[in-house]
Amino acid sequence: MRPAPEQIYPAGRLSLREVGLRDGLQLTKSWPSTGQKREWVAREAAAGVKHFEVGSFLPADKVPRFADVREVIAAVDHAGAHGVALALNKRGATDALATGVGEITVVVSATEAHNMANVRRPRDQSLAEIAEVSALRHETGGTALINAGIAMAFGCSLSGAVAEDEVMRMVERCFEAGVDLVGLADTVGYAGPRQIASLCRRMERAYPGLPYVIHLHDTRGMGIANAAAAMAEGCRVFDASLAGLGGCPFAPGATGNVVMEDLVFLAERQGFATGIDLSALIDTRRLLAEALPGEALHGTLAKAGAPAMAWQAA
Amino acid sequence: MRPAPEQIYPAGRLSLREVGLRDGLQLTKSWPSTGQKREWVAREAAAGVKHFEVGSFLPADKVPRFADVREVIAAVDHAGAHGVALALNKRGATDALATGVGEITVVVSATEAHNMANVRRPRDQSLAEIAEVSALRHETGGTALINAGIAMAFGCSLSGAVAEDEVMRMVERCFEAGVDLVGLADTVGYAGPRQIASLCRRMERAYPGLPYVIHLHDTRGMGIANAAAAMAEGCRVFDASLAGLGGCPFAPGATGNVVMEDLVFLAERQGFATGIDLSALIDTRRLLAEALPGEALHGTLAKAGAPAMAWQAA
Repeated sequence: MRPAPEQIYPAGRLSLREVGLRDGLQLTKSWPSTGQKREWVAREAAAGVKHFEVGSFLPADKVPRFADVREVIAAVDHAGAHGVALALNKRGATDALATGVGEITVVVSATEAHNMANVRRPRDQSLAEIAEVSALRHETGGTALINAGIAMAFGCSLSGAVAEDEVMRMVERCFEAGVDLVGLADTVGYAGPRQIASLCRRMERAYPGLPYVIHLHDTRGMGIANAAAAMAEGCRVFDASLAGLGGCPFAPGATGNVVMEDLVFLAERQGFATGIDLSALIDTRRLLAEALPGEALHGTLAKAGAPAMAWQAA
Repeated sequence: MRPAPEQIYPAGRLSLREVGLRDGLQLTKSWPSTGQKREWVAREAAAGVKHFEVGSFLPADKVPRFADVREVIAAVDHAGAHGVALALNKRGATDALATGVGEITVVVSATEAHNMANVRRPRDQSLAEIAEVSALRHETGGTALINAGIAMAFGCSLSGAVAEDEVMRMVERCFEAGVDLVGLADTVGYAGPRQIASLCRRMERAYPGLPYVIHLHDTRGMGIANAAAAMAEGCRVFDASLAGLGGCPFAPGATGNVVMEDLVFLAERQGFATGIDLSALIDTRRLLAEALPGEALHGTLAKAGAPAMAWQAA
């Protein structure tokens, strides 16, 4: 039976999702072998991470870096974690549903300009395809959650500021299209904490108790501050990647996803017990350094290490 | 006549102090020439920065990198900005007062262990010396503000967690010793936003309306999030350095001060008009790259640039 979103993402604790294996590998010059991906999942799961974005269901001949997505899903299952796969159309969703992956992410942009640039179709068409994926899941009795990732939800490098009402309307349309939850993405790092907090309050008012994902890029250094603001407003699900792996084709040269290690430290400092072993997490970066030579590894915590002394004030 | 602290740091706007010329140069392998320091001040002041830590009054033969502190003070004066110089004892304060520098920073640690490690004397002795500096300022009719920087105010790499009451007691003792304002330093990056917010609330309750400085190191990636928390609680004076220059002998390999460029972007995103031109500020990094070859320049905003499009939501 299909779980409710709040069973996968309980309100009582934070869910920190490792997205490095998909979003993080989108733009890298090389990619890890399947064995290295397996080890990455195994080690990060052993450190306490319970949710992984595993890859994308795209034609393997066009996007070879995600050709082994089924093996990664198996690795996530083996680790007892929750897997999330990207599917950009009905064909991809069909393949994803067949694997029994826990969650399928579909994507639409908050702005027409970015939707056109990203997937070369208007938002209406993307929403119609999301509705098809939802219908397919229903027809096939699929157990995967469907999550609509809303890109450029906090500002767009192509069309500038994005009004909150516009984002909330897109959230509503995604739910009308049958998705179970949504993610709000600061794709190019335009957001500041006040803006994040305001949209999180809108989400909580409109959909009380329903989990939603905040997906932050640290393009302009606001990643951790934005995460702190969202946590304070009750958001409990965050995307991040080990060493901040990832970038954005619309923000060249930019830092990628918010850094998982730094996010875990923030969460603990804010009073959340993440269950994640920071030292083991930091140690897993070595695997990335080997698997992705020449790729920049971000994050400041890893350079300094976790505090040597107890850091909670008496 | 000596100004009141709130004339130098008005409550109605943020004061973002460039500390790269002192704190930032503490541990660098080389240092800029006097001409390069002058240009750094001139360009960053032209970009809109109004407060500069200029150097330290130490014996020039022992610490040659600060031997030109008087020339840097003159450059800050010339730019119409406010200068702040470090003085670790009465001799240094005598020299500093003679220059007419706007503010003298004296230092004491929140913990006995760090005070001993840093200046090889107990906190009581440091406080007695601070009282001497205050008396000297009084006797000589000096116009400089005296600011007590309290190191390790949010946790100590030598003795662990630091109780809020202990910090507030140290603040009180600094005021008893005659200082005009205090700075609370997260010297080794142990703090999280919740802790920062809590101590800022204590400061505001104990000394309503009196400016105080929050001095953050980004050692563990919390710098900008911590600044956001302090801003939200009413703190209006922040230390930062261009490109995050600086480090800490007690946190080897660590990132330095919070990055000025990122802090300015945060401030603007939070609704403060800083009057600082982000592009001109980012451009000034080139001077650092030339003056300090091989030194790591931190900060993510500079990599991506300020948002190309208007970023304030309608």
